[in-house]
Amino acid sequence: MARFIRPYKVRFEDCDSAGIVFYPQFVLMAQRVFEDWFGEGLGISLGRLHHQMKMGFPIVNLQVDFKRPSRMEDVLDWSLEVRRLGAKSLTLDIAAGCAGEERVAVKLTVVCSDLVADGLASREIPADFRAAMEKFRIPDRLKLAP
Amino acid sequence: MARFIRPYKVRFEDCDSAGIVFYPQFVLMAQRVFEDWFGEGLGISLGRLHHQMKMGFPIVNLQVDFKRPSRMEDVLDWSLEVRRLGAKSLTLDIAAGCAGEERVAVKLTVVCSDLVADGLASREIPADFRAAMEKFRIPDRLKLAP
Amino acid sequence: MARFIRPYKVRFEDCDSAGIVFYPQFVLMAQRVFEDWFGEGLGISLGRLHHQMKMGFPIVNLQVDFKRPSRMEDVLDWSLEVRRLGAKSLTLDIAAGCAGEERVAVKLTVVCSDLVADGLASREIPADFRAAMEKFRIPDRLKLAP
Amino acid sequence: MARFIRPYKVRFEDCDSAGIVFYPQFVLMAQRVFEDWFGEGLGISLGRLHHQMKMGFPIVNLQVDFKRPSRMEDVLDWSLEVRRLGAKSLTLDIAAGCAGEERVAVKLTVVCSDLVADGLASREIPADFRAAMEKFRIPDRLKLAP
Repeated sequence: MARFIRPYKVRFEDCDSAGIVFYPQFVLMAQRVFEDWFGEGLGISLGRLHHQMKMGFPIVNLQVDFKRPSRMEDVLDWSLEVRRLGAKSLTLDIAAGCAGEERVAVKLTVVCSDLVADGLASREIPADFRAAMEKFRIPDRLKLAP
Repeated sequence: MARFIRPYKVRFEDCDSAGIVFYPQFVLMAQRVFEDWFGEGLGISLGRLHHQMKMGFPIVNLQVDFKRPSRMEDVLDWSLEVRRLGAKSLTLDIAAGCAGEERVAVKLTVVCSDLVADGLASREIPADFRAAMEKFRIPDRLKLAP
Repeated sequence: MARFIRPYKVRFEDCDSAGIVFYPQFVLMAQRVFEDWFGEGLGISLGRLHHQMKMGFPIVNLQVDFKRPSRMEDVLDWSLEVRRLGAKSLTLDIAAGCAGEERVAVKLTVVCSDLVADGLASREIPADFRAAMEKFRIPDRLKLAP
Repeated sequence: MARFIRPYKVRFEDCDSAGIVFYPQFVLMAQRVFEDWFGEGLGISLGRLHHQMKMGFPIVNLQVDFKRPSRMEDVLDWSLEVRRLGAKSLTLDIAAGCAGEERVAVKLTVVCSDLVADGLASREIPADFRAAMEKFRIPDRLKLAP
């Protein structure tokens, strides 16, 4: 089982007037980890997926725990694991730590969808995508509640 | 009991290459509703709160259900209500609909905090703030689980 | 001759850790004024323009003078005028002031373009658009160099 | 003479509903190149500069030529050079290309400033900063007008 890892150095643009990361920026960072996992972890180009295969993985649910504040130039260690891998959807645990401290924990649920004329229609995750995703799945015995 | 209402027209900047609102933008929109509620609903300037009173309401938990996609120039009707009003923290229900459809539901938990030298320290919500917040509280009999 | 006016209250999201507006946010604000001018000043929906008419006004040149810093909750008075109205392109003066002070001056040049399969192709501004834009044009006698 | 180089892969968040990079994102990218140049090219931490030395380099003028559109997953090669190095201010040429094509050219003028109680006050660039910046200066004989 693998965990997808990505460091990120907090930038000036991420910080608010209290000098700490403005929380919506963490959502953007988690989205980047998700995107990099697709491209580099799974070997699937999201650009080709959207434009050529007319398929996407829109987010249906997002949960974030903000545990401790982060500051300019902190190097956050982001990690991504697959918590749940369903037929059409999956839930990801995406978390950031720094210097041994937990900072942010994100749970992202996405649904495999066809991009159709008037919106989105859910569909089964293709078998080769699923096989690639399986490698990042947390073994049941390691799952902590909830 | 009052509900704080705020319309928002989806802008070009909010939309992704599939032509629908990029989900982190909804987090930003919810934050603006929260900010406007403070200023206009409660009559508390967040600017003065931060800079003069050295107090803030940092977010500790965020939950978002993305129910249906939104598009450029959709006018979203955002609403805010107080779901829970604790001694030091509160949970807000912030939701957006359009043309009778639910689009996004956000649950935001914030903690009243002193901005101290090395970070944040939780504190009791001042009584006058609490009295103002109380007006936006959902009566228990109207609360739906969970 | 008319000037398109739009007030904007500086938000928490606009401010950096020095407590002043982070300069890229001014570019976003100018873009919003441009967008609102299209919709409300000219009566042209950018959404319909893009999706139904397959036409757009991409930016080719941007110049910004940052004159004085702005802070949280400052109400900026944004204004837009047409400095130059060519056959295929136009240059807009978009500026923000506050309490009698100039804060930011933006010059934006956009080109009327067809959205074609592989990108953009410049085209003449439709006559009815031009007539609407003409009303916001700065008379030559009022133009200051450069 | 050195040129500071930084690759950047266009992300989903950068693209608009026409599938090309939304132009304000280029301003953000140029700012990141500037920030990385400080940290890695000059060896000056902007975080320490702001918070400990109470000094900054606010932007006073920004000029951008948008030459050709960029798309999702394009790898932009950003470069930074010092066009002008004055006593208190400097002008940087920051540009992005891709696959041999020029995409965006940015000219950024920043002023060395003390962060004082009520805002910013310009000051001379410290000698050691200047020496480090000098290495990235374009030789006069290579400068193209204007």
